[in-house]
This record gives sequence, C-alpha cells and structure tokens, in this order.
Amino acid sequence: MKKFSLLIALLFSLNSFSQTDAEVLKSIYDTSLTNGKSYEWLDYLSNQIGSRLSGSHNAEVAVQYTKEQLEALGLDKVWLQPVMVPRWIRGKKEHAYIKTEKGTTIDVNICALGGSIATPALGLKANVIEVQGLDEVKALGNEKIEGKIVFYNRPMDPTQIHTFRAYGGCADQRYAGARVAGEYGALGVIVRSLNLRQDDYPHTGAMSYGDLPVDKRIPSAAISTNHANLLSSMLKMDEEIEFYFKQSCKKLEDVQSYNVIGEITGSEYPNEIMIVGGHLDSWDLGDGAHDDGAGCVQSMDVLRLIKETGIKPKRTLRVVLFMNEENGLRGGRKYAEVAKQKVENHIFALESDSGGFTPRGFSFDCDDASFNHIKSWEPLFKPYLIHYFEKGGSGADIGPLKDGNIVLSGLRPDSQRYFDHHHASNDTFEHVNKRELELGAATMTSLIYLVDKYGFSNIRNKEELKD
Amino acid sequence: MKKFSLLIALLFSLNSFSQTDAEVLKSIYDTSLTNGKSYEWLDYLSNQIGSRLSGSHNAEVAVQYTKEQLEALGLDKVWLQPVMVPRWIRGKKEHAYIKTEKGTTIDVNICALGGSIATPALGLKANVIEVQGLDEVKALGNEKIEGKIVFYNRPMDPTQIHTFRAYGGCADQRYAGARVAGEYGALGVIVRSLNLRQDDYPHTGAMSYGDLPVDKRIPSAAISTNHANLLSSMLKMDEEIEFYFKQSCKKLEDVQSYNVIGEITGSEYPNEIMIVGGHLDSWDLGDGAHDDGAGCVQSMDVLRLIKETGIKPKRTLRVVLFMNEENGLRGGRKYAEVAKQKVENHIFALESDSGGFTPRGFSFDCDDASFNHIKSWEPLFKPYLIHYFEKGGSGADIGPLKDGNIVLSGLRPDSQRYFDHHHASNDTFEHVNKRELELGAATMTSLIYLVDKYGFSNIRNKEELKD
Repeated sequence: MKKFSLLIALLFSLNSFSQTDAEVLKSIYDTSLTNGKSYEWLDYLSNQIGSRLSGSHNAEVAVQYTKEQLEALGLDKVWLQPVMVPRWIRGKKEHAYIKTEKGTTIDVNICALGGSIATPALGLKANVIEVQGLDEVKALGNEKIEGKIVFYNRPMDPTQIHTFRAYGGCADQRYAGARVAGEYGALGVIVRSLNLRQDDYPHTGAMSYGDLPVDKRIPSAAISTNHANLLSSMLKMDEEIEFYFKQSCKKLEDVQSYNVIGEITGSEYPNEIMIVGGHLDSWDLGDGAHDDGAGCVQSMDVLRLIKETGIKPKRTLRVVLFMNEENGLRGGRKYAEVAKQKVENHIFALESDSGGFTPRGFSFDCDDASFNHIKSWEPLFKPYLIHYFEKGGSGADIGPLKDGNIVLSGLRPDSQRYFDHHHASNDTFEHVNKRELELGAATMTSLIYLVDKYGFSNIRNKEELKD
Repeated sequence: MKKFSLLIALLFSLNSFSQTDAEVLKSIYDTSLTNGKSYEWLDYLSNQIGSRLSGSHNAEVAVQYTKEQLEALGLDKVWLQPVMVPRWIRGKKEHAYIKTEKGTTIDVNICALGGSIATPALGLKANVIEVQGLDEVKALGNEKIEGKIVFYNRPMDPTQIHTFRAYGGCADQRYAGARVAGEYGALGVIVRSLNLRQDDYPHTGAMSYGDLPVDKRIPSAAISTNHANLLSSMLKMDEEIEFYFKQSCKKLEDVQSYNVIGEITGSEYPNEIMIVGGHLDSWDLGDGAHDDGAGCVQSMDVLRLIKETGIKPKRTLRVVLFMNEENGLRGGRKYAEVAKQKVENHIFALESDSGGFTPRGFSFDCDDASFNHIKSWEPLFKPYLIHYFEKGGSGADIGPLKDGNIVLSGLRPDSQRYFDHHHASNDTFEHVNKRELELGAATMTSLIYLVDKYGFSNIRNKEELKD
C-alpha cells in the first residue's frame, strides 16, 4: 500500500496543486454522497412545485425558487436572463376510445402532443389507418389517408443499447406526423408513445405543423404502448373500427420568462467561461424529476460542491438553468445570442439532460485535440465506474453556443429506464435514486474541476503550431 | 463503412467459426432484448410463487416450476439434486415500539433476523445501549451490556461506490451481533438495516449464534434506517427510554429440498464443465425478485439463448439453481461435494447474485493467466457498455467449487439501488426493469460463449511450460 501511495504521489508530483487530482475527485465524490444538496432541491422542485411547462405558473415559481437557492450559496453573481417563451396549455384531460363495428367501446390512454391543436369540441371520430412512418403516409397518398386518423405505430428499436438512438429513430413520427398526414387530408394523428416498455402511460412531447396552412392542421396525440398494441391488433381483425378522441389544448400568446444564471467568477482567467446546466422547464405531465429537474439540481450542486470542497476556479463557472427546452429552445437560443452580443468567450459547456440515473460518462462535441486532452483524464474517473468518454452529441440547450471552438459535453447516465418515464405522468421524484443523482453531480463537478485546472488553451496553441 | 467491414472481417478471419465473435455477441444481445424469457419467468417466480425461504412450501413450488421450465427447453438433461436444508420460520408479524419516560410509545418497523430465536411470548422490554460495532460491545463489557437491548447502529458507508463493500463493512453486526452481545448478558439485539437509503423497510438476513450456549442466546431483529435514526436521536435526548419488541420466529427440523440442474452436454469436450447459476431460495419478505430470482432466470436464459442463437457448445454447460444460499449455503456445498465425488472437471462457474440491474461487467476469482485471457475479450463487450472486468469475488454458491484451477466469476450489475431492496419487503418484481434484466442475461451468455469457444487449456498449458 505504501508503494502504491508513493507511486501515486510520484505520478502527480508534476502538478502545481498541493492536492493531487485523484484526491480532489475523491473529495468531490465523498462530499456529494455525504453532503449533497441535489436530492433535497429536486424534492422541492418535484413535490412542492411540480411540472414546469414553459409559461406556466409553476415554471415561474421554479425560476424564483432556484434563483433564491443560488443566491443562498454565496455565488459571485446570480441573475435572471429574460426570454419570451411560447405558451401551450393542455386544457381538460383527453378522452379516447376505440369503437368496434358492433358499437362496443374500449377506453384508451392518450395525451395531446405539445403544440397540437384541439379536436372539435365534441371530439373527432374516424376510421384509422396504421402506418410505420412518414414515408408510408406519403406513399399511400390522399386516396388512403384522406378522412382518416393516421396511427403512427413504428416502435422504438429494443436492440439499441443506447436508448437515445432508439428514440432518435422514432421521434420524427411524433414531431412531424401531423404535418405530413395533414398534407394528405387526414383528420387526426395518433402516435405510439416513445417508450421501450409496454405500459399504460401516454408520453407527450413536441410536435410541429411547420408552415402547413392553418386549415390543414390536425390534432395529434400520443397513445400508450399497451393501447397502441391493442389498437394495432384490433385493426388487424377489423380495419373498419373507429377511433374517437377529444382534446382541448391550445396555444396562447408568448409570455415573459427567464433563464436562471449563477456565477463564480474566475480568479485568473475570468473571461474564459465554463457553463454547466440543465433545463428548468418540463412537460406538464408528472413533475419533470428526471427531465430535467435532475439536470438542474445537479448543475446547481456543481457550483456548491466546488465551493464546499474548497476549489477556487481560475476560470469563470456559470450554472445556467435554461427555460423552454421542451417546446421551443428559446432559453438556449437567448443565452447564446446574449453571449455573442457581449463577445463572451465560452470555452466549455456541459449539460445534464438524460435523467438522474447512474452516470456512465460523457459525450463530447469538439475537435480531436480537445477530445484527446479530455480523454487523458479518463483514468481519474475509473474508481467511480465512469468509463464512457466518447465523441457525440451534448445537449439541446447548449447547442446554440457551438462555434467551432467551444467544447460541448453531455452527461451520459445509464439510459435503460429513461424512456419509461420521459414526458409521461410517471416522471416523478420517487423514480430518482438519491445516490445515482449525487454520483452524477459529482461526476460533472469533477469534469469541471479538470477543465478549470487544465483548460484548452495549451492544447489549442499546440494544434495551431502544428497547422 | 466498407473499409471498416473488411477490417473486421480480417481481424476475425483466423477464427474457426464462420460467424465472427462480434456477430455472435450481437445476435445474443438482440435475441435477449427481443425474445428473452427471463422477465416472463421472473414474473411467474415473483408473482405466482412469491418468496422462497428454504424449506418453505413456496421454495418447493419454485423447484418444480423451474425444473419444468428447463425441461421444456429441450436440454440434454434436467435433474434435481437432493439437499437437506434448515427451516426457520418467522411466525407472527413482529411488533416493536420505543417507550419514553412519560410512557408514550412510538411504533417502529422491525423484522426478526433469519435464525434468531423468539422473544418471550409477551415480548421483551429493556433499556437500550447504542453501539457502533462488535468491538464496542466487548469494550463496554458486562457492566454496561447486561440486562440491556444492544442497538447496533453503524451505518453503511455512503462513500463506497461499490455498495457491496459498504455492505461488507457492516454485515458483522447483523451476523454476529447477538452472539457477541449474548456473551455479555444482553437481553436482545436490534440492528440497523443494511441499506444506504433512509426509508421505512426493515431488512432481514442471516445471523448466527455460533457455539454460544443456548441459555445465552438472545433474540435479534433489524430496524428500518428511518427508525434507527429515530431511536438514536431519542437516546441522545434520554438514555432511559425503553425498547419493546416481540417476535415468534423459530427453527424447525431440517427438510429435504433440491438444487435444480439442467445441462447441454458438450459436443467435443463433454468432461469440461461450465456452470451458470443463481440461488432459488430467497428471504421470506418481498418476493425475492432481485435476490435472487433475477440471477436464476438470467441463468436459465443463458442456456435458452445459447440454443436460440444456434450455438452448439463444445464443452458441457450447466445451469444450477442453488437452494439455501441465504441461510446455510447447503445447496452450494452439496453441489461441490457431489462434483468432487464424481471427479467432475469444472473449468468455469459464473454466478449472478447481485440483482437484475444494468450489467457493468464481471469480477473474476482466478489465476493471472486465466484473467488476462478473459480480459482480452473485453473489447467485444464495449458496444454493450460492459466495461468492468476485474479480479474479485464471485458468488457464495459457487465458492465451494474453488480448487485452485476453476475460474469463478460473478456478474457485476450497477449496485447503487441493490441495497434499497435487499432482504426487504420491497424486493419485488416491479423494481426489476425488463431491459436491464435481459442485458444481464445476454452479457452472461456472451461470456459463456467465449469461455466455451476458447477454453482455458491452451493458456494453462502455456503457463505450465513457463513454469
């Protein structure tokens, strides 16, 4: 053991800090697991506030709450960044049933997709045509589609280990399903919920009519996977069954909202800005604990853990709680717009928006030199079972910052259970495990610590010399 | 893409199989995720049978059920291996309360530890002394311990990333707490539940009196973490509070039970035996879905997935569902004893007994040469996010097979939530995720496939040459 300690000491002896990086990481993880605050914050956000759809009362309460909590941390600055956000409301709970030829009806679980128009006040009833995707609608054309309810039923691919890839392979049906079906005269759209599990929860999410003329816009809703299976098997027996649904959702005027921002100003390079964040808004079903309450409280705890463990960042560290990721991305766009106006130098942005599950690592959207620089830190994370350092996407809110220079990163938690809860009424606090959440916060803090310590300027200068 | 495929083909061109290993693993994972049977079996075991304490009616039903299911797979052999097991029963639900000086009482959640004796029929009431472990009891001695209820309250260490290490750091209180306290004249023992979460579930588990004389044996029970905290804080305010508990558990005569075994006989080396298994018995609280229904159904599915994907094992592959891991290990000992009698050559044993959570890898108990041989396969698992190949323990049931030659291995799933459920009434089916369970079965099957294909004889012969 002594030999091992000597070796470690030797390995890190070139560092300018008296503490070794391994010791700092240990201190960060220990503090998060014994004295983390993310879980307590998430409890409040989820159970005292609840769902936080953009423009809702709850969203504004969450803005005030998180601002106050950040202020209590004694950061150098805390402010609200104004942003106008869309406002869509669900209205009364939806109702839907399948009606057989004999006139018997079976109630099924649906929810309006975010951005959809309402059905007529008495609902909408029509025959159903099941399709596997947008192309099939186009291939079938007006003759088969007109006057029908189009039922998009392509399931997520269960063989994808990265479940976000399975999601990416199906989300077009939800987002553009009504726009495409509307072009061919469909009356409405029902979309299989984006969930790998067979269960009874309908999952909402953003949809868009694009520039479809208003008279061609049709209501669209998600149906639970169990009821999608039921509808599909009933259609196989009798294609003349009718589907009825009623929803009263609508779009209101844009309203004023805010990104919530807190900052620890860098001691040596205050103009090099690192941000860590999640999105404060959520869908209106459930309480948005995983999506993305978890990412918000983890990001807040990054700044708190930095302070608790006595780290003094050389570079400026900001937490940004973005508003309106779910149905507009207005917060992310506004933040990037203001950063550009102020000619701020953002060197690194890390988003947590994949749920509060056990962290596995990060994906990085950056040049090879920066990636290899970061990848060299991977062994420091091995004691924490963090093993995934790969190139890939980051997060929707930080995407608008992309400029060919900034390093973007996304926390990658275990993704197997994420879509069981995503955008559904069971995205609730009790499905977040305290330790898993805290491990995520510690993993993010550790990466921020290393970025702050080692920066990217050295490796970039080297690259430039090479070129 | 073409270049990549060529490269892959080239890399694997030396293999004797027409399919590459990477393709076989993909086929195994795909089959498990689209056509696995582990979840359906676990549903039956958990919800149609329920808890399976050794010697109970349910345990025998589970023996029959799993035997029938294995027979339906068309294996080469399925048999029951008789083993006598201890029988301990909980009796009536326990009752416990804390009584303050003023005479007010607060009910608290306890459960008898497995193997404990009952309290007197009217229960046991005494003052409480809180300790942090066995050594403290010894240090305090008769004067402080006699006539008291000893409250072991050392919590699991939350900074351990491997939660089994935190468990290992506390389990002595549960196992030997009553034996040690009994020596010093304590009247009873209450042990903090081995759980990292603060909640209301008491967690049972094995305890032993060793060779303590019968007149010194005292009843012992676990208390939920929330109520352990409550008891501790009440003691800080008033050390004269009394604790009352009543339990009517008892030990009966040993009964006949069985290990359930199924076999695919090897086509080339039938005498080289690989086993995969879990334990069929569970504690009597909950339904034993994670501990260890999950390991049993995953092990059963290994043989089924081998058949489904068309693999013909060269070596003999057995699934063993061990009886009585929880309170005796009689099944594991019996299996090893019979193997020794028959001079069977077991080359590999893999146990899954750490819950049905997302698999992270394996630990291996073996010599360096075998470990390095296995470690060379690790890259094949990267697409499935399996990254943990480390030396370490394996599983209790396969431990008795250890002979300096066999390679022992344990599946290592994510362990963060395991102790939330372990040995408690919330170890139930709904806390097992289908995909996570299936990924574990596929990961085990993949390792078995590779062990079967490459064996250990080559590398061992090389090692012998070196020596």
